[in-house]
Amino acid sequence: MKIEIITTGDEIMSGVTLDTNFSWAAEKLTGFGFILGFHTSVGDDEQAMIEALAIAQGRSQAVIVSGGLGPTPDDLTASVSSKFFNAPLELSDEALEMIRKRFKEQGRELLEINKKQAYMPQGSHVLKNYWGTAPGFRCEKGGVVFFFLPGVPKEFKSMIEEYVIPELDRRDIGRKKYHSRIVRTFGLRESEVAERLKGIEREDARIGYRPRFPEIHIRVSGYGDTEEKAEKLVSGIIDEIVLRLNDYVFSTDDERLEEVIGKLLLEKNLTLAIAESCTGGLLAHRVSNISGSSNYFERGVVSYSNQSKVEVLGVAKGLIESFGAVSKEVVEAMAQGVRRLAKTEIGVSISGIAGPAGGTPEKPVGTVFIGISHEKKGEKSQRFQFKGTREEIKLIASEVALDWIRKFVLNYV
Amino acid sequence: MKIEIITTGDEIMSGVTLDTNFSWAAEKLTGFGFILGFHTSVGDDEQAMIEALAIAQGRSQAVIVSGGLGPTPDDLTASVSSKFFNAPLELSDEALEMIRKRFKEQGRELLEINKKQAYMPQGSHVLKNYWGTAPGFRCEKGGVVFFFLPGVPKEFKSMIEEYVIPELDRRDIGRKKYHSRIVRTFGLRESEVAERLKGIEREDARIGYRPRFPEIHIRVSGYGDTEEKAEKLVSGIIDEIVLRLNDYVFSTDDERLEEVIGKLLLEKNLTLAIAESCTGGLLAHRVSNISGSSNYFERGVVSYSNQSKVEVLGVAKGLIESFGAVSKEVVEAMAQGVRRLAKTEIGVSISGIAGPAGGTPEKPVGTVFIGISHEKKGEKSQRFQFKGTREEIKLIASEVALDWIRKFVLNYV
Repeated sequence: MKIEIITTGDEIMSGVTLDTNFSWAAEKLTGFGFILGFHTSVGDDEQAMIEALAIAQGRSQAVIVSGGLGPTPDDLTASVSSKFFNAPLELSDEALEMIRKRFKEQGRELLEINKKQAYMPQGSHVLKNYWGTAPGFRCEKGGVVFFFLPGVPKEFKSMIEEYVIPELDRRDIGRKKYHSRIVRTFGLRESEVAERLKGIEREDARIGYRPRFPEIHIRVSGYGDTEEKAEKLVSGIIDEIVLRLNDYVFSTDDERLEEVIGKLLLEKNLTLAIAESCTGGLLAHRVSNISGSSNYFERGVVSYSNQSKVEVLGVAKGLIESFGAVSKEVVEAMAQGVRRLAKTEIGVSISGIAGPAGGTPEKPVGTVFIGISHEKKGEKSQRFQFKGTREEIKLIASEVALDWIRKFVLNYV
Repeated sequence: MKIEIITTGDEIMSGVTLDTNFSWAAEKLTGFGFILGFHTSVGDDEQAMIEALAIAQGRSQAVIVSGGLGPTPDDLTASVSSKFFNAPLELSDEALEMIRKRFKEQGRELLEINKKQAYMPQGSHVLKNYWGTAPGFRCEKGGVVFFFLPGVPKEFKSMIEEYVIPELDRRDIGRKKYHSRIVRTFGLRESEVAERLKGIEREDARIGYRPRFPEIHIRVSGYGDTEEKAEKLVSGIIDEIVLRLNDYVFSTDDERLEEVIGKLLLEKNLTLAIAESCTGGLLAHRVSNISGSSNYFERGVVSYSNQSKVEVLGVAKGLIESFGAVSKEVVEAMAQGVRRLAKTEIGVSISGIAGPAGGTPEKPVGTVFIGISHEKKGEKSQRFQFKGTREEIKLIASEVALDWIRKFVLNYV
């Protein structure tokens, strides 16, 4: 079954709004085994919309139209579809009731303008909108089914799941079952990941790479006659990926790195304190994004000034004077200092030059030292040379630190 | 001049890659006063690509095609366009030279497969790619101009600016001049902003709303016979926006809130220290995203545990026991503590419950206290009740704190 999506709206055509509905729906529908043939975007323009509908009818079996169902005069979808289907607009009592209920729940008054949203081409099937005020509708013409959905992402997505997929499913008998998972990696480039995974693709399975700086995510999708078979196919490929990429894989279930670390720390009953300089709080922010992180994250210090490194972390002033704040000696003293003060098992530290200013010939922008301290294993540190903007350097430094924590805890005995 | 964009690629049609090229180009082209009529996306499928090219030729005067210029077998654009234009593929010496040079610079060996990228339909005009290895080309058919560009965003965008806009400009005589600016606001909902700005639109000017949680951005675009006139029109509207929205506007030039604060602190020669609990380092992270922030940001403390509030910030243990860590008393003591220890003029603090766990009937999830302390003006704090996910609550709390700093420094005498 060939499916086409038509996105409408001047805000899309002028680039004011980024169309995320299409990409979301494409992944969802492809995921369910449907084939997306075309995607067209048009502005709020009657002639262009009718043209897009006519072209779609000629080449697809199902058409999903998003947008233009609002109450204002630039929302044209109902009137355009009425012309296209040659069916007069009719008030749908069911739709009006839904809108009335929605307004009542929100304590808002129903205005005459809102009633416009209850009109749809004669013979349409109402698609109730439980996530907003604009009902959608479904029509047929020449054996092609058309779904008209609101453009608001939350409403569009909910209605794709609630109405479109089940209806397509009903019409498309014998379609294969589908399963998909995302593997997250850090430390290799996309081309290096691809090189290592050469030949891993199998019939009925797809591998997709999604660079999410500074990580590379791998989507593994598989089809089978039963859901179980599809799942097994995907699992088998993921096992092979882990074998080939080894330690670079930190999650086989689309988890964030900080989530993985949180689980590991809890499991091994370890606590963490952070001292960071150039990342400015980003490392602590990421660790604390995980609900329950207060169980293992004791404190963070953003020791931006040298004074604060001395006062809050107990770094010896002489160390900073001799080696500079961005040095092996200072970063190890920071990790040790914060660990001792916080009385945690692990202390992690970052000190570097995020730029664009502040670089020197010996320590150019992007020079970052990362340190780790453990009550029994002592201190270790490493020097890195990162590239990118200030924010990219901050992000990659926080990522390397998190990944080091992961490996440290994983190998912890 | 009606323009159409065609995006190609299986990764787009399966939703694996979000197409950001289109939105970027749409904003750019609309910005320059061109009208975008249609946008079509197709997979790596010869028939679908030819169909899309034919339809575009029939309804547009200029067509921009992105993607499919790579060296692998699934890159079909050159062969498809050769069929469409009925012009055999020819090796372009100019293109080959460009590719050869690029590979040499990168110290990579030119393989036979890479030479494929130098073939284009006879009669094409080469568009050299200085940002990657895939050259583009320009053709004409029936009075319509076609641009074929690589899909890699950096390359696509650079080539739109370098080749497409100047060429369209050359062909579209008498087009109006354009100017655009972005106003950033915080504190009002989109509907409230729109309500206050009712009737502000003028002929030859457009107002677009772009919600960027938790901020609302307003794009003001204006056209005129000269650039000066367009600029003046936009400035006039922005003056009116500032008059109507007042303090809710924090930038009329698309600056980040932390950037605005940085300038204000530098201007008034004030320094800042931060103590945060539920935001976990996010506030310090945002402040430190600005290059040069070390001139006014002295230190941050992520006092996640109660122990750290007492030890690092000097909050009296009794205060936490009597009022709880999330309280007016403790948040003010945090702000005062960090300010005194850091010897800065201003101390800012945040303590709250970001959730989803940890709420109580008196202090449900989303309860956040924000405090500010100044050496002469003493301490102030405010209680907020935010809604959203853990990360949204963290983000909005950091935004409110930043906005408070802005207002404090703005009114500082």
